[in-house]
Amino acid sequence: MKLRLDCIPCILRQVLRASRHSSLMMELQEKILRENMRLLLKENWNVTPPELAHKAHAIVRKYAGGDPYKEVKKKSNDEALSLYEELKNIVENSRDPLRTAVRIAIAGNIIDFGALEKFDVRRTVEDVLQKNFAHDDYELFVNKLEHASTILYFADNAGEIVFDKLLIETLRKMGEYKITLVVKGGPIINDATMEDVKYVGLHQLVDDIRFLSNGEVGYERNSPEVREWIENHDVVISKGQGNYEGLSEFRGIFYMLIVKCPVVAEDINAKVGDIVLLYR
Amino acid sequence: MKLRLDCIPCILRQVLRASRHSSLMMELQEKILRENMRLLLKENWNVTPPELAHKAHAIVRKYAGGDPYKEVKKKSNDEALSLYEELKNIVENSRDPLRTAVRIAIAGNIIDFGALEKFDVRRTVEDVLQKNFAHDDYELFVNKLEHASTILYFADNAGEIVFDKLLIETLRKMGEYKITLVVKGGPIINDATMEDVKYVGLHQLVDDIRFLSNGEVGYERNSPEVREWIENHDVVISKGQGNYEGLSEFRGIFYMLIVKCPVVAEDINAKVGDIVLLYR
Repeated sequence: MKLRLDCIPCILRQVLRASRHSSLMMELQEKILRENMRLLLKENWNVTPPELAHKAHAIVRKYAGGDPYKEVKKKSNDEALSLYEELKNIVENSRDPLRTAVRIAIAGNIIDFGALEKFDVRRTVEDVLQKNFAHDDYELFVNKLEHASTILYFADNAGEIVFDKLLIETLRKMGEYKITLVVKGGPIINDATMEDVKYVGLHQLVDDIRFLSNGEVGYERNSPEVREWIENHDVVISKGQGNYEGLSEFRGIFYMLIVKCPVVAEDINAKVGDIVLLYR
Repeated sequence: MKLRLDCIPCILRQVLRASRHSSLMMELQEKILRENMRLLLKENWNVTPPELAHKAHAIVRKYAGGDPYKEVKKKSNDEALSLYEELKNIVENSRDPLRTAVRIAIAGNIIDFGALEKFDVRRTVEDVLQKNFAHDDYELFVNKLEHASTILYFADNAGEIVFDKLLIETLRKMGEYKITLVVKGGPIINDATMEDVKYVGLHQLVDDIRFLSNGEVGYERNSPEVREWIENHDVVISKGQGNYEGLSEFRGIFYMLIVKCPVVAEDINAKVGDIVLLYR
């Protein structure tokens, strides 16, 4: 998905928020904001939103001297882990555990410090368990899984990966899959990295782990390498808006997300707040 | 009120929206956005938000070849006028007509294309007639009016001025006041100008009309002239966020507004969505 002009003020809003997560002084916040405006003015805008966001957040990390979301991510992981047993029960006792696990994995996508300032995880789970999908390609998902032996899973955020863990455990019970997890090679906003994967114990459940770029380490989503990963797996799952924005030029992907911004809403033909399971 | 860093992405969002109201092509929208970013980078940010917004919107008007909100403002005036008789009845039949007229004038402040993209005028009126105030200096307002002979009224937006008309009519019934209305000297977003005042017939109800700057014509809110206006009137009413942002360094003003952004919310010690009648 190409960047829309609305993404420019939104990226600036994001970096401002990120610089506050680092408790940087006002003068430094202004410096970061101004440096980002100069960066954005220099850049070509005919790219995907994450590509510009990567460069923008690298400036915040430079001034913050590290990852502004380190604490926030740990808290998200802990909060999600505290819900894990309860949610596992809900999945296991439901009529269609896969369907329920998909819903819960989508609910976990509410943990997004890029698009949102505040959210209520427990309430979102309750909502998403009941809610109608704006796009619902679940039947196709089940069908593809029946004939699949390899799964590629693009994870999104810290905390959310605990919910992904439930879905991956459910998939494991359904069949003999080789599952490859994709996370960020380095920190950006609250995106999950290897550190988060290990923290929540997800690494023990997958066969391989690969890395997308945070602007510094890993592959850009629209790179030839990532295209090859996608082509070489039978079922591809992509969680969240950032992955949708970066991967949407490829074909053969199941997108699972909560729509959180008007630009993605328009592109995916849904409304802000909608839940989506879309095959494209 | 001094500009906060959050105002910078917000001003960019506003000018983008304004350029869309002009149905400008995408290339021109990008040109306007980039020119605004260069402008903001050149400017000192130690000013009030409206001062920067004035310069930003002047760029949109330059490319739009006129007022992007001309049609929108006419529609707002027409919609408000269509509610006028009904609201007049509500005011006249209420136990405390002034109190009700104040509530309705505040409800009219929802018509704000700067802070909001969408709003429901009728529903807002119904809400605001019931709602508790976050700050409520009504008693002081009544008290000051009892000893006043001159009123200065800073109007805010097109459409909203129909609701102000109801309040001014109610004031007229209460006493012999010399009422001076203040509107914008030229177009900016959906702020009321002389054209709107005449369109809704408000000019016949006031004794004098003065002009604030839109960045091109009239006085800036924090100018010595405006200070003198304020000092020379017994009761000063200021509608809306923009006037609050620009006038808040002065003393002796009754602010009436709906809080619509987190920056004003923090400054005025209220929440987004709150209604306020504050004397300061």
